[in-house]
Parts: sequence; structure tokens; C-alpha cells
Amino acid sequence: MRRGASARHPVPAGVLLLISYGDVKAAADRIAGAVRPVTVVPLDPGLVDGPGVHAALEFMQHSGSFKARGAANFVAALLEAGRLPATGLVVSTGRNADLGFAWAAARHGVPVTAFLAENAPAAKAERLRMFGAHVRLEGADQAEAAEEARRFAVRTEAIDASTFDNVLTAAGAGTLLPEIIAAVPGLDTVVVAVGAGGLFSGVTAAADHHGVRVVGVEPTGCQALHAALAAGEVVDVPVDSVAADSLGALRVSHDALAWARTADVRSVLVDDDAIVDARQQLWDRHRLAVEHGSAATLAALISGAYVPGHGERVAVVLCGANTDPADLNDHIASSSARRARRSSASGRSSSV
Amino acid sequence: MRRGASARHPVPAGVLLLISYGDVKAAADRIAGAVRPVTVVPLDPGLVDGPGVHAALEFMQHSGSFKARGAANFVAALLEAGRLPATGLVVSTGRNADLGFAWAAARHGVPVTAFLAENAPAAKAERLRMFGAHVRLEGADQAEAAEEARRFAVRTEAIDASTFDNVLTAAGAGTLLPEIIAAVPGLDTVVVAVGAGGLFSGVTAAADHHGVRVVGVEPTGCQALHAALAAGEVVDVPVDSVAADSLGALRVSHDALAWARTADVRSVLVDDDAIVDARQQLWDRHRLAVEHGSAATLAALISGAYVPGHGERVAVVLCGANTDPADLNDHIASSSARRARRSSASGRSSSV
Repeated sequence: MRRGASARHPVPAGVLLLISYGDVKAAADRIAGAVRPVTVVPLDPGLVDGPGVHAALEFMQHSGSFKARGAANFVAALLEAGRLPATGLVVSTGRNADLGFAWAAARHGVPVTAFLAENAPAAKAERLRMFGAHVRLEGADQAEAAEEARRFAVRTEAIDASTFDNVLTAAGAGTLLPEIIAAVPGLDTVVVAVGAGGLFSGVTAAADHHGVRVVGVEPTGCQALHAALAAGEVVDVPVDSVAADSLGALRVSHDALAWARTADVRSVLVDDDAIVDARQQLWDRHRLAVEHGSAATLAALISGAYVPGHGERVAVVLCGANTDPADLNDHIASSSARRARRSSASGRSSSV
Repeated sequence: MRRGASARHPVPAGVLLLISYGDVKAAADRIAGAVRPVTVVPLDPGLVDGPGVHAALEFMQHSGSFKARGAANFVAALLEAGRLPATGLVVSTGRNADLGFAWAAARHGVPVTAFLAENAPAAKAERLRMFGAHVRLEGADQAEAAEEARRFAVRTEAIDASTFDNVLTAAGAGTLLPEIIAAVPGLDTVVVAVGAGGLFSGVTAAADHHGVRVVGVEPTGCQALHAALAAGEVVDVPVDSVAADSLGALRVSHDALAWARTADVRSVLVDDDAIVDARQQLWDRHRLAVEHGSAATLAALISGAYVPGHGERVAVVLCGANTDPADLNDHIASSSARRARRSSASGRSSSV
């Protein structure tokens, strides 16, 4: 991603759908046995009306997010092709993708060098090291760290995985969908969060094949897919959301836009309050601690941004939990205030 | 439980095994459809050697712990027998059991009055209210709150659920075991934490029937079962452990001791450091946030307190997550120190 690039990004000539269902099938064969099969559980009916709503607990995946799937596919495919140099991979998003690559590469003894900004949280560096990455703290912010990573890649011939807007990683992410269908026979709809759209396009490529609807959810504060659909082309968007650390993409991939216009896709928005509330309710009702980007999918159902039809079988994907759970037990004031508001609105007296 | 009671508690005459497999089967029929079936996943081989170790994620149960099973069985059985007064239940343990009863009673519109000490954490009262309990803050500590609860029960004829050392609740807890066997065919061994022994005796009653070994795990700081086995009778023990909030029982039930002496049971101890480490590793490797009492089971395997044989198929029960997860991301110093210790011990240099 170049900073300061044009805000409009027309689809390259000749490109229609880069990711196919065949790519997802190939990925599933390649990463079978390496990734953890997704666990799917029914959601508490107190959260979302109706017995037909499930949650796919993909945050329990290696590295704490679905990114492990795409990274495993990427590394395995490059190894198959003999295209991985001894210097391995370089990563520099400062996000979940780096952790996924660190985990996937370590399985094969492939080195990963991760560039983080000098002021990056110690916990972020520590977690990268836990998954085997060699961490270098360089640059005043993550963009500068990424520049250092690119220079390092040129110098050492390591592969800069963070610059790949990649069929292999999206196809790896798409392997989630067949697993969810196996767990929820008759699945009608899958709800996924959209950042740059890798998970979305991979899952949609598979969902289209299986006749499953996809609901793509974005925070109002970083709506790259929603804006692209409105503009008819990929455009740059502002990024300002509680979920920005996982979903805050400057723009969506061409693949994601192409799939959103082709398949049975709904693009919906949720605000930060709805995301924070959904994340808290997952902790209160299920004792699941997920990152805000994960909770956006549940927020779409709770807030009514997407309303399933009668009997519709829906699965929300909880795609990552690389989060600080410290605030989850610190919600007394907010929940009391919420109840007070509800009581006031309905004329009942508050018991608080 | 009377404070200042004799430290020795001989088995009452005529009592051998109060809880039978039949009780567990009856409980399973009674609570089917009400409780959430347990989810079982393979544990990361990086945590415990060997591919045969699974974790039963019972903390995802209603009310955040296995207590919902026993409470559901208790409430349903009393309703069947027409023995539930209009004043409902009173609870006063200040622990997971109260949440389980609050949830189970609310399903049937049965009122629950929960007594907490005046200085109880606000989050504890809030969570009880969330599950429908009417909370009363009375008494300088939980023992005084429990005295108030007993007076309230006498006055109103409500049933004091907290005083039941009960076949119904233990049998309800035992319904976990058949579900785990269904998820892990050929299960050899189940590992459960032991407080007063309700989960332990219920699970053991079922495990004995199925030919499954039970490993009962206690913190060194509250080893009621271990001490009872050593003494040959139920005895009072000191309570001082990081897991005391869920496992800190003054003494074990007669049932638990009887089953421990009859069935294929190993009683093992883990220290607080091992519990804290296991809880942290569940977060680091699986993004699961559980209470310390849950982590004791995994700690028994990591620490070598129980060493499975070659090919032994083992399931550890993670039984509750009514915990404050705030400290889970605050472990940089401790994990760095741990790695430094390991590196030092093995002669490797630390990368920190």
C-alpha cells in the first residue's frame, strides 16, 4: 500500500475474479492437519433471537486469528514451488497477519523477521517472539517500520509477506466456510468482518459455490468495502474505529469488491458502541474474550443491521482474539447506565 | 458448613456411596436441552506432549461454570416433586454455585435471593443480577451473609440451596463425563479440579461405569481431598491458594472421599505458580480466558503431577471462567523471566 496514492483505484484491466473456489479447495488440501478445525457453537438465544444462530470460534486458531490459515497456505505453496529463500519472510503490518506468518513459517523452520515501530507495545513484540519471529523495533511509527522492512527485504532477498494482497492468503481464509457448513448443515448465511477483504473474498468464493449468502460487516469508522460498493470502484477511506487495529484498512482489495458485486452479498455497517456492546455480551454470556473486529459480526445481528429471515440458519465468524481483555470486567458503570436508560425508556423503575 | 466445627468428620453410619451412575443418567435426562453441550478441542501439543490430550471447555456453560448443570438438575427435580415454594431459592456461597442456581431458577420463573457480604465486589453482584437474582448485601463477610440467608430461608420458607451438599447437584455435574466420552472416543482419563468434590464425585460415578480413570487435582494450598485420603476420613484443611475462590473448600464431601477410595482415581497436587502459568498459557496458545481453578487441571499435566502413559487419551476439564481477565496481557516480565530461567538451565542464551 503506497501512502499518498490516488484515492481512486480502478480495477486493473482484465481482472474480474482473482480468487476462485478452486483456490480455496487447493488451500484446504494444502493446510489440512496444520490448522485447527474451527469450533462452532450455538449462540445464546438471549443475545440474538432464534435458535438458528451459531458462532464460529476461529479466534481459537493458531496465532489467535484466522490469519494462520492464509499464512499456512502461503508458506506451504511457496515451499512447494521452491521459492522460499533461506532468509525467509519479512512482515511489518504490526497486526494479526504478522502473527499468522510467524506461526506458519516456524512450523517449517523458515525464519521470520518482524518489523515493529520503536514505540510498539511490549506485548505485541513479546507475542511475535512467542511464535518464533525475530523482532526488530525500527521507525517512529508502523509505516516507517514497514519501510525498513522493505529495505531489509531488498537487501536480504527475504520475501516481504506484508505487501502481498494475495490469492493464497485469501484462499486460505476461505477454507473456514466448508468447515462451518459441515458443522451447521443447511447453513443459509455466514457473517464475516471486512478489513481489506481477504477473509471476505476467500469466504465468499467458497460461499458462492455452496449457495450461501455472505454478510460483510464493517465499522462505520472504516468502511472500505461499503464505500467501494457505493463508488463502484476501490477508493481510500478514513480509518477511525475501536476495531481499527484489526479492520482498519485504507482500502479494500479489488477481489473483495468484485466478489461483493457478483455473489449474494450484503454489506452492512455497525457503530463502535454496538461493537463494544457485542464484545462485552460475548464475555458476559459465553465467557469468550474476542477482539473488537470479531465482535462486529455479532453486533450486526444485535443491532439489526442484518435481520435474518424466519428459520434462517446463520453463522457469525469470530475471527480473532489478539486483544487486551482487561476492560471486560470493568463494565459495571456502563451496564448499569444501559439498564437505567432502558428502564427509563420503558417506564419501569431501575433496581440499581 | 459450621465454622469452628470439629476438624474430623467420620463417614455417617450406613453411608457408602451416595451418588450412583443412575443418578447421573437421571440428571442427564432431566437437563437435556437446558444446558449447553460441552465443547471439546485438542490441546496445543506445545502445551502438553502428545496428540491425545483434549480440553473440555465447560466454562462456556450457562452462568460461566459447570455449576449450571447441577443447579438445573436440582431445580428441575424439585419442580417435578412440587417442592419449590413461591419464595424460591436462597443462595449465599458468593461463588459460582450461586450463579448456576440464579440461571437455573430464572429459566422456570423461580425467584432467587442471593446474599453477599456488604463489601463484595460490585462485579459479583452485577453478574448475579444479570442472571436474574435479587441481590442483598448484608453482613461484614460472606459467613455473616450466609447467616442472614439462613434466617431469611427460615422466615420465608425459601429453600437454602447453598447448604445442600447434594446428590442432585453432583449428579448434574457428572453429566459432563458422557459428553466428553462422546467427543473423545476411547477416552482413558479425565482430569477434574476438586473443591468440595461435587464435580469430582459426579464425574467419578460416571467414569467408574465407563471404565475411565479420574485424576482429581487440588492446589497445594487447599487440598481437602488429598488430606482426607491421607487421614482416611474427611478432615478440615487450611485454605490459601490463588484458586481459593472456586476450589477453596474447608473440607471435601463424604461422597467424594468414598468415590476416591473406590474407583480408579489419582489425587494430585499443583502449586499456585503452576496454576498461574497454565492459565496464562491457555490465553497465549488458545485465547481462552479461564479462572484459576480451571487451569489447575492443565497445570497437573504441564507440571508432571500427572504423567499420561504412551498413547493415553486424556481430557482436562476447564470448568469455569468467572474470572477477571485483566492480568492476562500483563505478563511480559514474568514470561521473560521464565524464558531466561529456561535458557539459563539449558545453557542457551536468552534473546530478551
